[in-house]
Amino acid sequence: MSELVETSAVELRRLIGTRQLSPVELLEACLVRISEVNPTLNAVTAMCVDRARDEAKAAETAVMRGDALPPLHGLPVGIKDLNETGGLKTTWGSPLFADHVPAKDERMVAGVRAAGAIVVGKTNVPEWGAGANTNNPVWGPTGNAFDPARICGGSSGGSGVALATSMLPICTGSDTGGSLRIPAAFSGIVGYRPSPGLVPSERRGLGWTALSVVGPMGRTVADTCLLMEGMVSDDSRDPFAGPVDPAAFGRPGRCDLSSMRVAFSEDLGFTPVDNRIRATFRERVDIFKHIFKTADWRAPDMEGADFAFDTMRAQNFLASHKDRYEKHRDKLGPNIVANYEQGLTFTALDIAEGHKAQTKLYRGFQDFFRDFDFLITPTVPVPPFPLDELYVTHINGEPLRHYFHWLALTYGITLTGHPALSMPCGLEPTGTPFGLQVIGPARGDLKLLAFANALEQVLEGDARTARPIPDLSRLKK
Amino acid sequence: MSELVETSAVELRRLIGTRQLSPVELLEACLVRISEVNPTLNAVTAMCVDRARDEAKAAETAVMRGDALPPLHGLPVGIKDLNETGGLKTTWGSPLFADHVPAKDERMVAGVRAAGAIVVGKTNVPEWGAGANTNNPVWGPTGNAFDPARICGGSSGGSGVALATSMLPICTGSDTGGSLRIPAAFSGIVGYRPSPGLVPSERRGLGWTALSVVGPMGRTVADTCLLMEGMVSDDSRDPFAGPVDPAAFGRPGRCDLSSMRVAFSEDLGFTPVDNRIRATFRERVDIFKHIFKTADWRAPDMEGADFAFDTMRAQNFLASHKDRYEKHRDKLGPNIVANYEQGLTFTALDIAEGHKAQTKLYRGFQDFFRDFDFLITPTVPVPPFPLDELYVTHINGEPLRHYFHWLALTYGITLTGHPALSMPCGLEPTGTPFGLQVIGPARGDLKLLAFANALEQVLEGDARTARPIPDLSRLKK
Repeated sequence: MSELVETSAVELRRLIGTRQLSPVELLEACLVRISEVNPTLNAVTAMCVDRARDEAKAAETAVMRGDALPPLHGLPVGIKDLNETGGLKTTWGSPLFADHVPAKDERMVAGVRAAGAIVVGKTNVPEWGAGANTNNPVWGPTGNAFDPARICGGSSGGSGVALATSMLPICTGSDTGGSLRIPAAFSGIVGYRPSPGLVPSERRGLGWTALSVVGPMGRTVADTCLLMEGMVSDDSRDPFAGPVDPAAFGRPGRCDLSSMRVAFSEDLGFTPVDNRIRATFRERVDIFKHIFKTADWRAPDMEGADFAFDTMRAQNFLASHKDRYEKHRDKLGPNIVANYEQGLTFTALDIAEGHKAQTKLYRGFQDFFRDFDFLITPTVPVPPFPLDELYVTHINGEPLRHYFHWLALTYGITLTGHPALSMPCGLEPTGTPFGLQVIGPARGDLKLLAFANALEQVLEGDARTARPIPDLSRLKK
Repeated sequence: MSELVETSAVELRRLIGTRQLSPVELLEACLVRISEVNPTLNAVTAMCVDRARDEAKAAETAVMRGDALPPLHGLPVGIKDLNETGGLKTTWGSPLFADHVPAKDERMVAGVRAAGAIVVGKTNVPEWGAGANTNNPVWGPTGNAFDPARICGGSSGGSGVALATSMLPICTGSDTGGSLRIPAAFSGIVGYRPSPGLVPSERRGLGWTALSVVGPMGRTVADTCLLMEGMVSDDSRDPFAGPVDPAAFGRPGRCDLSSMRVAFSEDLGFTPVDNRIRATFRERVDIFKHIFKTADWRAPDMEGADFAFDTMRAQNFLASHKDRYEKHRDKLGPNIVANYEQGLTFTALDIAEGHKAQTKLYRGFQDFFRDFDFLITPTVPVPPFPLDELYVTHINGEPLRHYFHWLALTYGITLTGHPALSMPCGLEPTGTPFGLQVIGPARGDLKLLAFANALEQVLEGDARTARPIPDLSRLKK
């Protein structure tokens, strides 16, 4: 039974399609695994077991009837609790929505269902997705699968842990400052931040701001691609959406690593990074850098990135939380209140200057990617810290600017809208997973996924860089 | 001679390609026409006659040699003076740049040249493109081709007048609040505002703001399409750019008007419109509305549009003029200073709320365009006013909010990024041209151009709606 849930989503889907595995059997196996480890880790929150069982039964019937099967047919999926699921509690981790059950799915969720996946439950988040932790007053904290006393990263932390422990084969996430990438790094799985518009949202309040995107997570690059096929769409309610072929995302393409020019950077030249992470990164890069055509220690110029992210992020907070802040300030957590109030101090000129800096960064990246195919950095600048801390205050003894400064390695990339993913690369000396952030050229999503898939095969071939698996015996109650 | 320059650009290009017309002959004819009417109208500013003659000669040689010819081969073109032309004065209508000669073409200009067009000169603008007039301290005002004592609209006013008087067969423009559409209306020609990203700009300071776009102008829809082919590109220095086929824009497609559902609105439900314009619009619509499948008086909900445009436009001003305002406030015109200082009063929260309202408008438009194929309004709410006025202070006796409030019919459409064009529809009772604004669905540029081309053929068939031609005998000195 344990082997089944640990099988890749791609293989599970193949077994379902060839009638070697029933969606019912798979769902039940996932439910057993959830019952075993979720009490310790708290990654999956609201569940819809009865509905999922009905859907699994119907999926089984469709297989036996010989129906044409959609790409995710019969695969259990977890949906991040920042996304609306019809008939299933969606709380955003906020006491204001502790009992909120949406009337219908948002577009992305409906798309994943239409692609054949079976929604089993929601995955945990920080309140309103703020901060790269996964802890909120409604559901409490989610523990790291490799050390439950430490954080799992966030904000898509529940999804990351559910994947690492094989509670579910695929999960959705979203990302503003690193929320798909950071929890992927701390859980030893893959989190992929797509180019804006590939996974359209009809709910984004600021239509022409590319900071927040929705994306897939999986245990492997290929699993992540498979889920992406069900998320990609051209829905013009999102101004960034455009013509796209979902099937092109369904499996990674080919990539000849020996012709790739790769840049490496410990810190993008502007972020605080723990010396232990720097050492681990250099050690790992030395293991595999010879497989590329060229490997250079270089980074694009990130001047203005901190101010750009502070202001652009503040815009999102102001747009999202105005009504709530004015009516229910007492029901918002300290991070939200602090961010909103920081946002109020900015002027229109600050926003314009931040946006201008962001645009300059973007063009600098485009120049950079004329010389390099990919850029690789560590995903997170520190190892996972204790579960009762919400963020990092110091790195290498130096104080950080504010509660999200420790995300600079990922938010620096967010600013330009370039596609990026985090993939596992062995363990840190602390015994928790180490993640690589891989960044591709603008709109080069398919190229990035092909590259990461090829790199994954190389990393799997060496025990020091292979995907780590948590010891479940420590997690079962 | 006069007949040659009045020939459509499409026909001129055909004559060049079939060796019936030399690019040299065409250029000389344009130069004669410019010498005849430009002294009165002041539409063309800096010129590069020697270089243009060299290029025309080379273009002639290429034809005679039997070279493959690009789409605009040998066509003289005017470039709006807000766009950088290498080796040719580019002033933005500002005393600060009265003698500025850029080292190289910006991308759009290089694209138009690469498509075979011959740059003859620059066309006049208001200082920094602000306001829908065409008057600046460097070059002075451009007069209306039908009444030189009245304004020609702006900010692409020089291009509009150069086309109306056949000084040049094609001209470029740009548009934030209506700057391609308003001068097209007042000159009786076509001005097309493309969807953001189709004509990429490497110079836009705010990469993710869709307000300002560059686009083509012509005497007919087909001429406008021809120039568009030379402007369209996928240049990823503009975050809005994407894969596109320039040749698809080169000529209008087919459109069956009898299957089109068309909505008409005098005022979009929120703009001040002069009662004379309302009457003209209703009278003209009554002439041609029967050609469509359905014709309804309906408009999308424009709630929040004024605030959205004020704030989003202010952002652009703040981003563009900060350094100049701080260092050279005395060298900026009153409109620029007033706009910049209004921008300084906005907070980040205002910007977020404006952006949110803009996004809501966009989604409302998308709903609207499920029921209608196109929306048609008047382009400008007033007839052209005297040349020494820079803007309208009252409409129907009611005071306007500020100097750009009279552009609400066009800036309301700008906000959503939907493609729009202005096309001529006879004369106003004042004897100056009347323009229709035609708006298509998001990203429906090719559909819009096909529709406008078909409609143009209908309008040409009735003297009351045909494109008006100015009386040159009144203009020649």
